Amino acid sequence: MTKNSILLEKTPDSWAHGVLENFDLFLLDHAACERKAASLALSFTVKYPDREALIDPMTSLAIEELKHFKEVNKIILDRKIPLLQKDEKDTYVNKFIASLRHGRKERLLDRLLMSSLVEARGEERFSLIAEHLEDPFLKEFYTRLAHEEAGHHRLFMMLARHYFSDEEISARLKELAVVEAEAMLTTPLSYRLH
Amino acid sequence: MTKNSILLEKTPDSWAHGVLENFDLFLLDHAACERKAASLALSFTVKYPDREALIDPMTSLAIEELKHFKEVNKIILDRKIPLLQKDEKDTYVNKFIASLRHGRKERLLDRLLMSSLVEARGEERFSLIAEHLEDPFLKEFYTRLAHEEAGHHRLFMMLARHYFSDEEISARLKELAVVEAEAMLTTPLSYRLH
Repeated sequence: MTKNSILLEKTPDSWAHGVLENFDLFLLDHAACERKAASLALSFTVKYPDREALIDPMTSLAIEELKHFKEVNKIILDRKIPLLQKDEKDTYVNKFIASLRHGRKERLLDRLLMSSLVEARGEERFSLIAEHLEDPFLKEFYTRLAHEEAGHHRLFMMLARHYFSDEEISARLKELAVVEAEAMLTTPLSYRLH
Repeated sequence: MTKNSILLEKTPDSWAHGVLENFDLFLLDHAACERKAASLALSFTVKYPDREALIDPMTSLAIEELKHFKEVNKIILDRKIPLLQKDEKDTYVNKFIASLRHGRKERLLDRLLMSSLVEARGEERFSLIAEHLEDPFLKEFYTRLAHEEAGHHRLFMMLARHYFSDEEISARLKELAVVEAEAMLTTPLSYRLH
C-alpha cells in the first residue's frame, strides 16, 4: 500500500509528464471531472433520501465541487483554451462502477467507498501535478485542491462509518481498493485526471 | 398581464390556502424543486459548453439553488417530516418542455426564456406564501426566496439578451408566456410549488 493512503498502487511518474505536456487538455478534463463529481455527490441525495445524514454533507460537497469547477473554468477562459463540445467518457470511473454491488444497502456502502477511493486518487494526482508545476499560481491551486480532495476522502469514510460497521467497511474496502488499482493501471495513461 | 411581471395569468388565491393546509408536503416538494433547478442550471453548461458567457453564471446559480436546498432540507429535518422516497413528476415543467423547439439555437433561446418564466412564477408563488404565513422565520425565508427568484428571472433574461436580439426575444417570449400560463392553469392546483 502507498504511504499514508488507502490506495494500493502509486500513479506512474510518467503520468505527470503527460499532463504537463498537454496541460490545456488536462484543464478541460479536470473541469469536466469537477462537474461530474458535483453530480455524483447530488445523486446520493436523490437515491438515498431516507439516509438523512447524507443529505446536507453531500449537498455541501456538490457546492464545493462546483466552486472548483468555476475556478478551473476561469483558468481555462483566461488561457483562451477552446472549450470541448462534449465530455469524454471516464473509463476509470466506469470500470469502477461496473464492480459495485446492486443490493440497496450494499450499493450505498460500495458507492461511499468508491467515492472515498476516487477522492484519494484525486489527492495523489493533484499533489503530483503541484510538485511538477512551476507556475506559482497553479502550483498553489493544485496544492489546495489536493488538500481538499483529502477532506472529501475523509468525509466519505465518515459517512460510511455512520451507516456501517468497521468490519463491513474494512472487508469491502480491501476488495474495492484492488478494483481501484486495477482500474487505474488498466486505463491508458494520458493527459486526463483519471 | 399581471402587474410588473412577464406572467400572463395570476396564480388563483386558493393555491396558497392549499399550500398552508399541507405545508409539510409543500416543503418536501419545494426541496425537490430547488435540487431540480440546480440540475437544470448545470445542464446549460453541459449542453452549451461553447456559449462561454453561460458557464460561470449558470454554475453560480446552481450553487445558489443548492444552498436553498440545504435551507429547506434543514427546515424539513427540524420539523421531523418523513422524507419522501421519490420526487414526484413536475407536470407544469414537463408541459412547458414539450413546447420547446429543437434546433440548437432555437432551443437555447427557448430554454433561457422558459427558465426566466419559471423563476418569475416562483417569485410570484413564494411571495404569495410569504403573505399568508404567520411564522416570522418562515415568512422572512419565503420573502427572501421570492426576491432571489426575481434575481434569477433577470439573470436568464440578461443571458438571453447576450445571445439574441430584442426582436427574437420579445416575439418568442410572447408565445412562451402563453404556454406558461396554460401549463400553470391546466396543472391541477395542489400543495405543490408548481
